Amino acid sequence: MTAEFDLIARHFSRPVPAGMLGAGDDCALMPVPPGRQLAASTDMLLCGRHFFPDVDPAALGHKALAVNLSDLAAMGAQPLGCLLGLALPRADDAWLAAFADGFYALAERHGCPLAGGDTTRGKELAISVTVFGAIDPDRALPRSAAQAGDDIWVSGELGAADLALRLMQGSLPADPARLALARVALEWPAPQLALGRELAGIAHAAIDISDGLMQDLGHILAASGCGAELRYASVPAHESLQGVPEPVRRQALLAGGDAYQLCFTAAPARRARIEQAGARAGARVTLIGTVQAEPGLRVRLPDGGLLPPMPGGFDHFRDAHGA
Amino acid sequence: MTAEFDLIARHFSRPVPAGMLGAGDDCALMPVPPGRQLAASTDMLLCGRHFFPDVDPAALGHKALAVNLSDLAAMGAQPLGCLLGLALPRADDAWLAAFADGFYALAERHGCPLAGGDTTRGKELAISVTVFGAIDPDRALPRSAAQAGDDIWVSGELGAADLALRLMQGSLPADPARLALARVALEWPAPQLALGRELAGIAHAAIDISDGLMQDLGHILAASGCGAELRYASVPAHESLQGVPEPVRRQALLAGGDAYQLCFTAAPARRARIEQAGARAGARVTLIGTVQAEPGLRVRLPDGGLLPPMPGGFDHFRDAHGA
Repeated sequence: MTAEFDLIARHFSRPVPAGMLGAGDDCALMPVPPGRQLAASTDMLLCGRHFFPDVDPAALGHKALAVNLSDLAAMGAQPLGCLLGLALPRADDAWLAAFADGFYALAERHGCPLAGGDTTRGKELAISVTVFGAIDPDRALPRSAAQAGDDIWVSGELGAADLALRLMQGSLPADPARLALARVALEWPAPQLALGRELAGIAHAAIDISDGLMQDLGHILAASGCGAELRYASVPAHESLQGVPEPVRRQALLAGGDAYQLCFTAAPARRARIEQAGARAGARVTLIGTVQAEPGLRVRLPDGGLLPPMPGGFDHFRDAHGA
Repeated sequence: MTAEFDLIARHFSRPVPAGMLGAGDDCALMPVPPGRQLAASTDMLLCGRHFFPDVDPAALGHKALAVNLSDLAAMGAQPLGCLLGLALPRADDAWLAAFADGFYALAERHGCPLAGGDTTRGKELAISVTVFGAIDPDRALPRSAAQAGDDIWVSGELGAADLALRLMQGSLPADPARLALARVALEWPAPQLALGRELAGIAHAAIDISDGLMQDLGHILAASGCGAELRYASVPAHESLQGVPEPVRRQALLAGGDAYQLCFTAAPARRARIEQAGARAGARVTLIGTVQAEPGLRVRLPDGGLLPPMPGGFDHFRDAHGA
């Protein structure tokens, strides 16, 4: 690393809380509360693949951490800290200051101090974030814990990020007002950490919706050896979807990625406690289906029929939004 | 991620030990022993910057983990597990199988199971590894813990990786036998984890030599508010340096990066215990200098004189080996 890059690394060397050892040593050190396990997750974000080159750097800093915190949320874990790896084609001071502001603001909001990392020069902008959390392993929400008969729930509203991406890519007709409403969900996703912690020990399985509701619920079902029926009419739609053509709406709700809401399962006897958990976390929670013993994911349409299976499942949607 | 890349990710989904939750969930879960803190470190390796495009993929898998384990070693931590992020321009099955073999072999040798990660398509090969370890915080070896009067020690022998790099880059005349001897240190570095654990609670400060002895010792001195005198004649040289011209040898020993040996400080009263720690870890340890109250790093030459200060310190060496 050149001296220029040493300077840049200082954008990411704000003080860490007492009891932690932060950036500038071989390792970050952080306490893990007694009786808790370590929960850890890493994601790599690449320019041109996971974000546009001209993205607002503050939003990018926010999102790079948010998508990782969302993984902690889906396990029901409490954040402990994070590490940041950055490969940069050049050292643009203003860009980095804005990126750091977006990153640190979210880190502080969720008590997840940046404790170290690695900055290097690279041909393409690449971002690697690793988050650490603490969890009582008996209360974790692994994908494999769904049971036949469980309710299926989702947090928040779906579809806005997918709609925004299609509007920005030009695959839908220009609609600036709709885009303004939708793009905040794409660029500033809010990880559902408070809800995840409230659900720990109450819900069974959980996942965050990064690849689309059907595909991510499919991961829970595959890991749990179950199937499910989803009620399409119950899936909560973001207000930006009002009035869009039905094929666009259906794609956005069922297969739209980048939502970072939680999809989770819980015993029907827990309905009141799930509602309370949502209220305490300030998160809308909606019952959208049922886990079944029979394998496969069936989507019940408002007319009582089932969504026809699609060639290759919902995989063909994925390439459409570049995930 | 496409189905092709889902398949590739399976190269990195070998089973994890009982009590851990591994790849395929939102987070990896792992127990941290009671009374220990979490030690964590991350590094990003980029093609063309940190390794050659035609590098043996097994050696690359080994080295990507080794450079991170070396950070745990320098803190005196015991590995708990690791995460791997991979951006790949294409899904080359044989290449990935070899990379995974190199990675897993080292992970198994040091009890550091791969517990999760993220595989994506990228224009350039980029590798991000995060390692976790456990440490009694009272026995850690932070860079800031050196004291005036401490002995300065180094493990192993220095200079081979730097020599190999220069031979491979053609900045030294071709010498295939010498290259064969030297390149194993560059491509298959051995993280000094056993030595780091033996030193925990006995030594004061430690660092792993990734940027060169003077520069990395300089990090300890800066963090500890001290200076030092190094005895050049005491610095242990790798056998591949025998007979090389003195300027090449001096550069390799004092400024050669990628060594992944430990440089550490300890009270002179601990000399016998340091020797015992080295013997128990199977690592050569050599006394090479003294920490002093006066700031600055002085290198005493065999003729009794001091190495003249260089413009920009040793920074100008860094560009020479691309670090």
